[in-house]
Amino acid sequence: MSGDFLALAQPGVQKLSPYVPGKPVDELARELGIDPARIIKLASNENPSGPGPNVLKALNDALAELTRYPDGNGFELKQRLSQACGVNAEQVTLGNGSNDILEIVARAYLAPGLNAVFSEHAFAIYPIVTQAVGARAHVAKARNWGHDLPAMLALIDSHTRVVFIANPNNPTGTWFGADALADFLAQVPKNVLVVLDEAYIEYAEGTDLPDGLDFLNDYPNLLVSRTFSKAYGLASLRVGYALSSPVVADVLNRVRQPFNVNSLALAAACAALDDTDYVAQSRRSNASGMQQMEAGLRRIGLGWIPSRANFIAVDLGQEAAPVYEALLREGVIVRPVGGYGMPNHLRVSIGLPAENKRFLEALSKVLGRG
Amino acid sequence: MSGDFLALAQPGVQKLSPYVPGKPVDELARELGIDPARIIKLASNENPSGPGPNVLKALNDALAELTRYPDGNGFELKQRLSQACGVNAEQVTLGNGSNDILEIVARAYLAPGLNAVFSEHAFAIYPIVTQAVGARAHVAKARNWGHDLPAMLALIDSHTRVVFIANPNNPTGTWFGADALADFLAQVPKNVLVVLDEAYIEYAEGTDLPDGLDFLNDYPNLLVSRTFSKAYGLASLRVGYALSSPVVADVLNRVRQPFNVNSLALAAACAALDDTDYVAQSRRSNASGMQQMEAGLRRIGLGWIPSRANFIAVDLGQEAAPVYEALLREGVIVRPVGGYGMPNHLRVSIGLPAENKRFLEALSKVLGRG
Repeated sequence: MSGDFLALAQPGVQKLSPYVPGKPVDELARELGIDPARIIKLASNENPSGPGPNVLKALNDALAELTRYPDGNGFELKQRLSQACGVNAEQVTLGNGSNDILEIVARAYLAPGLNAVFSEHAFAIYPIVTQAVGARAHVAKARNWGHDLPAMLALIDSHTRVVFIANPNNPTGTWFGADALADFLAQVPKNVLVVLDEAYIEYAEGTDLPDGLDFLNDYPNLLVSRTFSKAYGLASLRVGYALSSPVVADVLNRVRQPFNVNSLALAAACAALDDTDYVAQSRRSNASGMQQMEAGLRRIGLGWIPSRANFIAVDLGQEAAPVYEALLREGVIVRPVGGYGMPNHLRVSIGLPAENKRFLEALSKVLGRG
Repeated sequence: MSGDFLALAQPGVQKLSPYVPGKPVDELARELGIDPARIIKLASNENPSGPGPNVLKALNDALAELTRYPDGNGFELKQRLSQACGVNAEQVTLGNGSNDILEIVARAYLAPGLNAVFSEHAFAIYPIVTQAVGARAHVAKARNWGHDLPAMLALIDSHTRVVFIANPNNPTGTWFGADALADFLAQVPKNVLVVLDEAYIEYAEGTDLPDGLDFLNDYPNLLVSRTFSKAYGLASLRVGYALSSPVVADVLNRVRQPFNVNSLALAAACAALDDTDYVAQSRRSNASGMQQMEAGLRRIGLGWIPSRANFIAVDLGQEAAPVYEALLREGVIVRPVGGYGMPNHLRVSIGLPAENKRFLEALSKVLGRG
């Protein structure tokens, strides 16, 4: 008699639905039987600018050591990050993308009988990593699509170990200010780890959004998660990091795989930190792309959720899934967010000016408003 | 009052001692204040040959897409692997190195109250991933440093969910034959997953070692784990894979991070599969390097454990730690294996002829037998 290896899996794992990524260009090209070059992808909040020159040089230099294991301690990248962020190296945990950081937090601090608090319309990885370890999710209702921090506070109970908040939030683009964060942190019990996901913070810098790092010294229960996948343009390479108290970093570093970030990723991330012009240029391009997108949506007569990130959630005022499918047939990949409780929205990444234009034209055509 | 984030961590995590990798060349160079070029590293069973030409070309081609997320399904690599291994694509799970595969297995199938069986002197990651999820380890005594498969069978009880076996084994280099594997699989209960770790199998091919894939059809409870880090020379990039029944692969793919293998790693692994000459050449170099190493050890008057992998466990007949330290001062990095219950051995990777020679000379000098 054969074992039932689905039934034998851990209860949380049995019911796990994997994360659904943006549809890759090559996959759509295969499905439609068309040239990948005719397809644009505004589905994964990637940086449309292509890699910076420092990064390409660093990768070429690293190729000679391809047969060697990565530095499992990520010595150089941790040094660079600690300087750039004004923290000690022992406060840094490197992740295979910030996805890895979020998962490591769940594996370290959650288990059956415990729970994590997060918001409706938040990043899909929060519920996935929570369920994978058999913990419960306490999901707070959103307020105007954004985090309702007082409602989240109210959901914290004696079994809560982690709260996930994102600023700006994905997939809504919503944000909260420094005062709201300060109030929130002051009220969260000290034995609850607050994971502040700042994957998109570089796009919002210089606005009224708080810098999570300013709160690290006062809150040993705060962890700030960041990534090289967005403004730094290294989504392909999977580098994220957590900044936290040394104790939390020590625990996370025990759980993390010894070589979770690969050698080329380490080399590229170090180089990207020096590419301050690249990030500044990405922020400027994104701001003008956002204006282009908003103007176009206004012309078409559609609403959207105001966003401080590198994407915009467009309100179609009707079920979005058929529009998503019709856009695919036009060779335009965006992101359906029905799984995020937003069946009438599509999340669209800000692309290059020509990509934004092509999306707006395709959307107009598909909606019969051309 | 501040939370104690060590005490708040899961019990298995609190006591976790992270994996200790081979000392990186740069780290020793920093410690000794010497030029990294004067150091040789035979500590991590890396392929000493440097990357193959197909791989370098594939990486260069992939650089254009650096800002894009990896294909989370690893479509192309899974297709290539399924062809190369004679399995269906839905039997493949990709990992961020085979370390990732081993960890995913533990997270899917182990938990407090359950246990995993493995051998004394086996890969350090087996106890780490077992403890991290709070499961118990049932450790079988080794036999002549290798797996005692009947002893492992005897340790399986009703709470056993996973057995880890390795062929050849790391860090001993020992192996078992096809008959022994067949006997073992026939007796393991069908609800226990047998993880056959073949990280070093390419070095042993064509000998009397079994090919785990030959048993996949008959044993839905068998998983074969392999890696691109050894004979394929891609340790820096972290690509491993599991071949299993589709049900097990489905479960593992739910647990795995959506982008666990990065884009450059996917591209390089596809190219490496075409580099059959590279692997064949690596095998030949390793065989002659092993002869060189054995002859040198015989000259020095030392014993060793016969090995079918790309490393050799040298028996110093005395505590190895001081010899390891003395070798470091000679600029030669090898691997102490006291943590594997082998305090008198050093594990030495087979390097290039000049590296093997330099190790043997340094060892001879350090032992005063020059």
